[in-house]
Amino acid sequence: MADPVLDDISHRRYNPLTGSWLLVSPHRTKRPWQGQQEAPSKNVLPVYDPQCYLCPGNTRAQGDRNPQYESTFTFVNDYSAVKEQQQEYQPQTDKDGVASLLLQAQAVTGRCYVLTFSPKHHVTLADMAAAEILPVIQTWTRIYASHLSAAHPLKAQGEKALASIPANPDGEVDPPRGQLRYMQIFENKGAAMGCSNPHPHCQIWTTSTLPEEPAKELAQMAKYRAENGRHLLDDYAKLEAARSERVVWQNDGFLVVCPWWAIWPFEVLVIAKRHVRALVDLTDEERLQFAEAVQEVTRRYDNLFETSFPYSSGIHQAPLDCTEQEAETSWFHMHFYPPLLRSATVRKFLVGFELLAEPQRDITPEQAAARLRSCGGELYRKLLN
Amino acid sequence: MADPVLDDISHRRYNPLTGSWLLVSPHRTKRPWQGQQEAPSKNVLPVYDPQCYLCPGNTRAQGDRNPQYESTFTFVNDYSAVKEQQQEYQPQTDKDGVASLLLQAQAVTGRCYVLTFSPKHHVTLADMAAAEILPVIQTWTRIYASHLSAAHPLKAQGEKALASIPANPDGEVDPPRGQLRYMQIFENKGAAMGCSNPHPHCQIWTTSTLPEEPAKELAQMAKYRAENGRHLLDDYAKLEAARSERVVWQNDGFLVVCPWWAIWPFEVLVIAKRHVRALVDLTDEERLQFAEAVQEVTRRYDNLFETSFPYSSGIHQAPLDCTEQEAETSWFHMHFYPPLLRSATVRKFLVGFELLAEPQRDITPEQAAARLRSCGGELYRKLLN
Ligand SMILES: O=P(O)(O)O[C@H]1O[C@H](CO)[C@@H](O)[C@H](O)[C@H]1O
Ligand SMILES: O=P(O)(O)O[C@H]1O[C@H](CO)[C@@H](O)[C@H](O)[C@H]1O
Repeated sequence: MADPVLDDISHRRYNPLTGSWLLVSPHRTKRPWQGQQEAPSKNVLPVYDPQCYLCPGNTRAQGDRNPQYESTFTFVNDYSAVKEQQQEYQPQTDKDGVASLLLQAQAVTGRCYVLTFSPKHHVTLADMAAAEILPVIQTWTRIYASHLSAAHPLKAQGEKALASIPANPDGEVDPPRGQLRYMQIFENKGAAMGCSNPHPHCQIWTTSTLPEEPAKELAQMAKYRAENGRHLLDDYAKLEAARSERVVWQNDGFLVVCPWWAIWPFEVLVIAKRHVRALVDLTDEERLQFAEAVQEVTRRYDNLFETSFPYSSGIHQAPLDCTEQEAETSWFHMHFYPPLLRSATVRKFLVGFELLAEPQRDITPEQAAARLRSCGGELYRKLLN
Repeated sequence: MADPVLDDISHRRYNPLTGSWLLVSPHRTKRPWQGQQEAPSKNVLPVYDPQCYLCPGNTRAQGDRNPQYESTFTFVNDYSAVKEQQQEYQPQTDKDGVASLLLQAQAVTGRCYVLTFSPKHHVTLADMAAAEILPVIQTWTRIYASHLSAAHPLKAQGEKALASIPANPDGEVDPPRGQLRYMQIFENKGAAMGCSNPHPHCQIWTTSTLPEEPAKELAQMAKYRAENGRHLLDDYAKLEAARSERVVWQNDGFLVVCPWWAIWPFEVLVIAKRHVRALVDLTDEERLQFAEAVQEVTRRYDNLFETSFPYSSGIHQAPLDCTEQEAETSWFHMHFYPPLLRSATVRKFLVGFELLAEPQRDITPEQAAARLRSCGGELYRKLLN
């Protein structure tokens, strides 16, 4: 049962996945609804755009030509944030040690990919059926599997996945030679999230270092396991399923919730219901169930304000190179961070107080979940071609 | 001396103030400059706007009328994120303890203020002379002093400040009765930072809890002091002053740097050169030096892309209620987080990889500091009235 007091008072909630707090101010929504009501957006994009560097057959900025791909297509980002080869870096040493303490740096190598979801320029995950999203998940799985380190505890699972999932030659990539530590699969969708090309795509950044967020989550999950003998996200998914007020949707494999500790107004967490450590652990059936979950989230998002809902999303799973213990600690999940608050044009800004002091939200996760539960059903718009 | 290798390779840098890492990808700026070059923005705002809820003499949303103030003006936010009084909250208990672990909440009370910097609707800190910014700092100081807890280690300093700084009746506020733990002074400037009213103003949120960021910083500074017997920001300011490649500007009281660990493209840190624990420690002379530092930062920002530069800024100092040890650990500083990257209209988005994995920046702090050093001099635009 939801707590009626928390619906009414300012309070902080604790995020056990990252070990940090956020401020919730539910009464801020009691003020008159000043946000505009927007007319439903129309999809006026063409199926193929000759100017788009992601459409099949087109030429990219540095001269490469895209194949006439029919499903997904993967390539190395022409402006990667990390590269495979670069100069060696030797940290400077100083007499008194202050610089070594306060000017710390580490070299980072790796490779960045771009992966299109569909040859069709004008669709989004919300427009695609679960069966059409499945190839995306298959491509993610094959890429993750092919980048696992030789001694990885999930290596056998990876080989199994590579043997059982049909290869899509346009989706495949050969891993770089140097060992990678981590793979971040993420999507920036919509101009509000810094995306300049509507052609449906995600990015995959692989790095020689374990980034901050997954490192924090792994540490918190390991601590929880050590202290309670159970998995944090296992306990959490069961608790949420039993309480139901933050549940948006679920199937046999996945639970979709607005987490207790959500920062973004309609933030969503997709949690595997059993102990899936990474994409390669998913069965054929679970991959389809995951596709359904992604479809449900993105369609509900679009239905909420009848607009193509912007968000950043990403998958957290076992690192590409890790110990048995890290692999066992990992629990497959996907975050969705959407900025919209009140309508298609009124967003939440995480600025002054949020940057300087603490994240702050204006509606409760329970209110957000109730709204997302109620906007299932067909996508509000139809694709004309 | 700057490290030429770091100018060229992808690397991570460590932020000792928060204990976290960020990814730096300098070669991303080697790509052709695709950002537009904007025409200098013009200031077309009136000195007084009858529609502005912050202008002197105007009526605010809930019916209160602003006084005919002549310098700063402070009032309780009509839509505060925290309130002084609210229902009691009793955390729910559960048999197996999972909910108490995973659904943690704390009540938060407090009070939020809005503080205008000037009666003039059309100015910004960049347009104001240091002598005009001084009253803002005086108001901040008096408000901070009047909200200190009765047993605060800086109480005597606070009384001294209240006795020596002339009161501005429109800037003053009586503190609420309940004890507050922390005061966050911050400014959101520009539409890009969620600010909808250009009338120059900041906010002051006081809370019964210590927010995440200052809590992290205090913990990190305490750890550094315990391990090294010196203050982190003292060591850091001296190191930066000696190396100079990240220094933007300085006077006798304050050092302005693009910190080693800056996340935002032109992020700036203003550090007190001696051990100032909070606003109330500043001498008359230092308050003016601080006003000069704020003026230098904001004017250089505007000159950089010849636009009214958006940012969020805020002061970190000793909590309103704290132990002797927390007060002694505190080291007065001010953060500026501006989003622009390449021009008046091309900003950096901290989205997908940044939210899911780790903050990432495209130019080095050394490059940013060099550009900010070179755009001192007069403000590029003139106020016409
Ligand atoms: O209080 P304001 O100016 O209406 O709101 C602005 O600043 C607040 C504090 O940083 C944020 O929570 C809001 O998202 C932002 O729009
Ligand atoms: O790589 P893109 O799409 O050009 O860039 C976008 O995503 C990146 C990864 O989240 C961010 O660093 C950029 O700020 C953003 O604009």
